[in-house]
Amino acid sequence: MKIVIINPNSSEAMTSDIRMNAQKYAAGEYEVEVFATPGAPDFIDSYEDATNAVFGMIPLVRKLEKDTDAFIIACHGDPGIDVLKEISTKPVVGIGEASMKLATMLGHKFSVLTTSKRSIAGKEAVINQYRLTDSMASVRAPENENSMEDEKASYLEAGRLALEKDGAEVLVLGCAGLTGLDESLMEELGVPVLDGVKCALMIATGLVKMHLGISRQGRYYGKETD
Amino acid sequence: MKIVIINPNSSEAMTSDIRMNAQKYAAGEYEVEVFATPGAPDFIDSYEDATNAVFGMIPLVRKLEKDTDAFIIACHGDPGIDVLKEISTKPVVGIGEASMKLATMLGHKFSVLTTSKRSIAGKEAVINQYRLTDSMASVRAPENENSMEDEKASYLEAGRLALEKDGAEVLVLGCAGLTGLDESLMEELGVPVLDGVKCALMIATGLVKMHLGISRQGRYYGKETD
Amino acid sequence: MKIVIINPNSSEAMTSDIRMNAQKYAAGEYEVEVFATPGAPDFIDSYEDATNAVFGMIPLVRKLEKDTDAFIIACHGDPGIDVLKEISTKPVVGIGEASMKLATMLGHKFSVLTTSKRSIAGKEAVINQYRLTDSMASVRAPENENSMEDEKASYLEAGRLALEKDGAEVLVLGCAGLTGLDESLMEELGVPVLDGVKCALMIATGLVKMHLGISRQGRYYGKETD
Amino acid sequence: MKIVIINPNSSEAMTSDIRMNAQKYAAGEYEVEVFATPGAPDFIDSYEDATNAVFGMIPLVRKLEKDTDAFIIACHGDPGIDVLKEISTKPVVGIGEASMKLATMLGHKFSVLTTSKRSIAGKEAVINQYRLTDSMASVRAPENENSMEDEKASYLEAGRLALEKDGAEVLVLGCAGLTGLDESLMEELGVPVLDGVKCALMIATGLVKMHLGISRQGRYYGKETD
Amino acid sequence: MKIVIINPNSSEAMTSDIRMNAQKYAAGEYEVEVFATPGAPDFIDSYEDATNAVFGMIPLVRKLEKDTDAFIIACHGDPGIDVLKEISTKPVVGIGEASMKLATMLGHKFSVLTTSKRSIAGKEAVINQYRLTDSMASVRAPENENSMEDEKASYLEAGRLALEKDGAEVLVLGCAGLTGLDESLMEELGVPVLDGVKCALMIATGLVKMHLGISRQGRYYGKETD
Amino acid sequence: MKIVIINPNSSEAMTSDIRMNAQKYAAGEYEVEVFATPGAPDFIDSYEDATNAVFGMIPLVRKLEKDTDAFIIACHGDPGIDVLKEISTKPVVGIGEASMKLATMLGHKFSVLTTSKRSIAGKEAVINQYRLTDSMASVRAPENENSMEDEKASYLEAGRLALEKDGAEVLVLGCAGLTGLDESLMEELGVPVLDGVKCALMIATGLVKMHLGISRQGRYYGKETD
Repeated sequence: MKIVIINPNSSEAMTSDIRMNAQKYAAGEYEVEVFATPGAPDFIDSYEDATNAVFGMIPLVRKLEKDTDAFIIACHGDPGIDVLKEISTKPVVGIGEASMKLATMLGHKFSVLTTSKRSIAGKEAVINQYRLTDSMASVRAPENENSMEDEKASYLEAGRLALEKDGAEVLVLGCAGLTGLDESLMEELGVPVLDGVKCALMIATGLVKMHLGISRQGRYYGKETD
Repeated sequence: MKIVIINPNSSEAMTSDIRMNAQKYAAGEYEVEVFATPGAPDFIDSYEDATNAVFGMIPLVRKLEKDTDAFIIACHGDPGIDVLKEISTKPVVGIGEASMKLATMLGHKFSVLTTSKRSIAGKEAVINQYRLTDSMASVRAPENENSMEDEKASYLEAGRLALEKDGAEVLVLGCAGLTGLDESLMEELGVPVLDGVKCALMIATGLVKMHLGISRQGRYYGKETD
Repeated sequence: MKIVIINPNSSEAMTSDIRMNAQKYAAGEYEVEVFATPGAPDFIDSYEDATNAVFGMIPLVRKLEKDTDAFIIACHGDPGIDVLKEISTKPVVGIGEASMKLATMLGHKFSVLTTSKRSIAGKEAVINQYRLTDSMASVRAPENENSMEDEKASYLEAGRLALEKDGAEVLVLGCAGLTGLDESLMEELGVPVLDGVKCALMIATGLVKMHLGISRQGRYYGKETD
Repeated sequence: MKIVIINPNSSEAMTSDIRMNAQKYAAGEYEVEVFATPGAPDFIDSYEDATNAVFGMIPLVRKLEKDTDAFIIACHGDPGIDVLKEISTKPVVGIGEASMKLATMLGHKFSVLTTSKRSIAGKEAVINQYRLTDSMASVRAPENENSMEDEKASYLEAGRLALEKDGAEVLVLGCAGLTGLDESLMEELGVPVLDGVKCALMIATGLVKMHLGISRQGRYYGKETD
Repeated sequence: MKIVIINPNSSEAMTSDIRMNAQKYAAGEYEVEVFATPGAPDFIDSYEDATNAVFGMIPLVRKLEKDTDAFIIACHGDPGIDVLKEISTKPVVGIGEASMKLATMLGHKFSVLTTSKRSIAGKEAVINQYRLTDSMASVRAPENENSMEDEKASYLEAGRLALEKDGAEVLVLGCAGLTGLDESLMEELGVPVLDGVKCALMIATGLVKMHLGISRQGRYYGKETD
Repeated sequence: MKIVIINPNSSEAMTSDIRMNAQKYAAGEYEVEVFATPGAPDFIDSYEDATNAVFGMIPLVRKLEKDTDAFIIACHGDPGIDVLKEISTKPVVGIGEASMKLATMLGHKFSVLTTSKRSIAGKEAVINQYRLTDSMASVRAPENENSMEDEKASYLEAGRLALEKDGAEVLVLGCAGLTGLDESLMEELGVPVLDGVKCALMIATGLVKMHLGISRQGRYYGKETD
């Protein structure tokens, strides 16, 4: 089985990180390939970034489709998830959707840890689209975004506040670039912390095993062709 | 004042129809220009079509921005509305958002008349994104899509069913291509029927007069630049 | 075109303020008349005030109906909006409904600035009736209601807290008496601030141009007569 | 203990019916007085009727307040419930609110049986205000409103359809004028059928015994007085 | 009329307290018996406690059913409410359901005062099941659970914070063991404070008088038997 | 890795079916053991059945816990899911929760196929508890429950109606006893059909790999012990 992870941005450093963590999680049980998106911005930080990313993701998915069993979108905002669900004949899983829906199975409410305060509203909009608002405790960014020399400490503090102030019981890493932080946060905070890439790998491989894909019944019907 | 209407598809015929109806509605009180989107598909019938449309819309908006007071997206699914709200310094209004939110002011619940049954779920997804689900009676397509020689009769019947079966009190034309049908349906059915282009012109010109634009506070903050 | 604004209270001072601002906004493009409500209380501060206001508004609307193209209710709680929608054959627009629904088009969530802490729950109840709760960040009153010599500073502070603490991206002036504050708050805070009277004028004139009115299909059917 | 039931309309026939049924239910355990509303319309069939009713109800409540322990509003649309909750120092219970909230304790979803199809949307609006939409199966009127010689048979049929088609498990009589139908419908249909007047008597007497009234904390604070 | 109150735990002290308060409230108008649950834990503090309680409650209800007119579950989490509604042919009322639904009739939003911070999420889950989330201001526990020598002062402070910080207008005692605190909190805080046992007695006796019980139409149909 | 599936009923036939299908799905990649619940009813058809099942499940989980990596509850109503999530130190996955949340990733709305009309409301209540109501198209039982010689044809017809009448895009088998029907329904209807046992195996094994369990932060904190 081969799972292809699309990193919607073009950062080779982040792509490497994702590859390393994903392959470590896969542990050789199935093949995982990770691709940066040609022509995409270096980091997805706006709707424009996301739009530009999707434009590169579509041909990438089309090119890889034949030899791929399922696709994963490795950005927590799940850019392009609707169009990729529509065009691919293979299952498509977003790390945001996978991790947040899984989070609802592990506790009463979840918080998403995101990279900047200005990204909070956009994350909330995604959560609204997935109809998960009632299960969301908060979306939280580190308090001081400018002094993040110690990334782990910053997110640890944000997570602690989510648990203490917002009523979160489960934390979700809100960026593929945070991959790897889940285990250390989990150890310090004593609650489940979800890495979206791992969650998506679980869902994607499961869908392949069950021979399940995206429904063509209506929303993802695609274009009428003759 | 100059309002620019972007027709997200590339059909010159539909662009002409929209131009004619929009300029008739504007009645010379302000300038209205209507542009088809270069490189867009001929009709927006899928998420892929919408994605391709947005790719052409962004440079078009950027190019026209300087001499434009507000932009309108003239496709009822409002493709690209988030990214255009973000990148443009001018107000951006979608005909779907404008017409459906206005519809809630005129009656208890509204129904959207759409062009095909397979588009219903996608429209419902948009209505969910706008948090309008509780005000929606239904999304309805003509029963027999294959024999639509008489377009007006088909939508008249769909509208009648929305009123009688679904509890609709207001109807919304769910496609810019239906422009012009509002008055005849209204006359026959005796309820408000909303044409999204007119609704969006009303909102866009009003925003300009009030010196209001899209908030840069969070969701449409845009990319951090140095 | 003639728009009639009903100020539900009987304060001639507030009526004058509204008239001045409304006519300034109309800029001579259409006629605007503003009436205080005979027999209404001086300020609408309770359900009883609202009830008494409505009693004066009904005959006023009936008397003016023949020569009016659309009515506006100029109190942010929209007293009597259901009954006026029902009895008038002309469009009826509430400044609360118009401004809050417009606010949802300009940002992720809005906050309403209201005149007193004890009015917050009532405003929330109105927001619930309009099914806008999921788009509301908060309803906020100035912290210190007793020392409001500097009205503008008080609302500026309330607005700032709404943006910083509650996640608001758009502000709505929650009282017709605050008319005029929108531009100065907007300038200081850098986010859209909506004046309900202007918003309602936009909607009302637009409905007239589109020949749209309130649906008689069910909720606003009115009394069965023989 | 004395409970005063306000019939918001002026029909002495309906007032008598309500009095008979209420006193039968009270069975001498407490005093029940029933008043028609002076100056109100004969039947509450529109927002205008309701507005006119409330205008007569306020002085009636004020006049009777001193010697009354709790008030009941005996019209299923609960006209004036907010203003009466605000002005009276005694508990105020609406038959709509009491019966529909009680219905949610007896089964999964309830349907309201109403007197005419054109009243359905208005009832749904009330249900939305009470935040009961998710517990509502439907609002149903008799199919053929013109041939209601046999009122019981008409509502029996409407109730049966609510159970079979809409998923209702509990029925609520949606008009004080239907008082007395509950027991026969219950016998025929085998599900709980709620008469709002009885439900409100239960709540009102209970509140009196518990020394509970309406909160003055915010929404029903009333007018600031010196 | 005989109402049986089941205390789901086995504490004779709490059972006595409930009996004393319930009989005082009943004031001899009807018979009230209160039973501890054999084999149940001493306090219901977890899902496991609740499960164990229900196991003792079912035979108790079956044994007492013949001579009982209605049952009350006297634990604010309403353990076993679905199964008891299903198996008993008599009305079954939970103190949580009764008090929280009654609370919505007395003010805009309610807060529940609960015994410990770790019980908050569980209470919220119950409120979600009853579809009351939109009417809930908060669930609050005393700040310092370890120094509760002065129980009343602790809950008074929690109640005050609910009113001031959370927007509550009505308070609900979130544990049968707090019975008796309602009147003193009400006196100090000036808002309605609901004791679930009294609320449930009101509902239960009312249902008996109205000959109403749980619907057998679907959710509480029970097991198919031959 | 060892996954233990608890069949909440005592039917050895159903337990065998589940074992066969689960082991076939596991394909030797991990160990799967399936246990019927001692003392449970033969089929879970009511809240009482579910209560009795849970009573047997708790000691079974406790007994097996030491040598188990994750537990699955193999009844679509997920009986005991809250208490098992609380008491077990290992992940606990319900087939209802797993399949319905997964279904939301594959299409716009899902329908659950259930075994009898009288079970529909109970399933809807579970869906409400999981806050999935807005993603549910319907819960459907075969039309004619008495002539189910051909089980597959009956569910095929129910599934077809869900797609055509209710707007479902994904189907979920609403009973562990239907295991095996997924592939044939999927082939005939051309949409994803989810078998809860497979979905739960996917989630459970994934949680084990990620070292994730149930949060102890609040809702599943468990009993305070000294």
